[in-house]
Amino acid sequence: MKDARLTYHHGNLRQELVDSAVELLHSEGEEALTLRAVARAAGVSQTAPYRHFSDRGALLAAVAETGFSKLDERCEHALSISGGPRDRLHRLGKAYVQFARDEPALYRLMFGAELGPFKDAYPSLDAGAKRVHDMMRITVEDLMPEGGAPNADAESACIAAWSLVHGLASLLIDRNINVPANRATALIDSVTSLFAKGLP
Amino acid sequence: MKDARLTYHHGNLRQELVDSAVELLHSEGEEALTLRAVARAAGVSQTAPYRHFSDRGALLAAVAETGFSKLDERCEHALSISGGPRDRLHRLGKAYVQFARDEPALYRLMFGAELGPFKDAYPSLDAGAKRVHDMMRITVEDLMPEGGAPNADAESACIAAWSLVHGLASLLIDRNINVPANRATALIDSVTSLFAKGLP
Repeated sequence: MKDARLTYHHGNLRQELVDSAVELLHSEGEEALTLRAVARAAGVSQTAPYRHFSDRGALLAAVAETGFSKLDERCEHALSISGGPRDRLHRLGKAYVQFARDEPALYRLMFGAELGPFKDAYPSLDAGAKRVHDMMRITVEDLMPEGGAPNADAESACIAAWSLVHGLASLLIDRNINVPANRATALIDSVTSLFAKGLP
Repeated sequence: MKDARLTYHHGNLRQELVDSAVELLHSEGEEALTLRAVARAAGVSQTAPYRHFSDRGALLAAVAETGFSKLDERCEHALSISGGPRDRLHRLGKAYVQFARDEPALYRLMFGAELGPFKDAYPSLDAGAKRVHDMMRITVEDLMPEGGAPNADAESACIAAWSLVHGLASLLIDRNINVPANRATALIDSVTSLFAKGLP
């Protein structure tokens, strides 16, 4: 513990606070995420977080950014495996849904309504969602016949692909689709492949 | 006002409280939905709501049920217009997304994480989601070649259709896709038609 405190002084306190916030989010939910609670969880004084976060919105934004980085990594890994464009889109979709299932609280924070009021103050939040959008777009465009589809079709197909995986992830983690755990993976595989196949 | 009070005594208080709760949800958000706040908004005593709702969960469940009934109506109307199975699926998708845009707070409550803990106590919540699921399924099955697709495929296609519209609705109302208001309708039209076209 003493060593950890020393590193705080060397500038790791911010990351330590974000890590504690992610843990709090998982264990207690979004409402519990206050600067005070995070200070307590990280074992620092109640004023310490204010050196790094001006208010609760700044903390939530930092937690969401961590989430977007994790999602980026998962998606990039899925896209790095060799295969045709249809395989890549299918794998991207599966990785996206699996991320939401592994980190439901983080996923809800990243894409939910709670962060809406903070989006103007923290442009990194829109940037996170935009990276997801771009990744979908590039992957979908690889599927389009060269010089064929006009731009608007590619954009609709990209939004459709994102909507499909975002909807499936949300319906599953918020228990609107009740599927036994041992069948969920097969369902995700089949639903995401359906879209990749259906595109012209 | 006096007449209204009289009708409460004749059994309309419950509906009056639910209506006040829906208004509160729209104006103040989910956190503001307490039995106390609803009593105040409806202009009745603070103990009056307890005659109809044992706790906050019961109130939230009643509000969500109202939402599911409204969504049912919209979807049934969309399906009642004559047309081929592809048109019907397309219209159902558009009606679904439009409902979410018209009633974003209600939509989030109906499908979001907040109600998760109450689903075991209030089976009507699962019943509402199940009606949506069934409506999607019947509409998608109409598109399948007769005696052709095995059951599992129809179920995947139904979940895919629901995921697509739920994802699009959620991404739009929670501002993850930023589309100018005058382009949103065209985007929704094109994204929902893409799915109806893509199915085998």
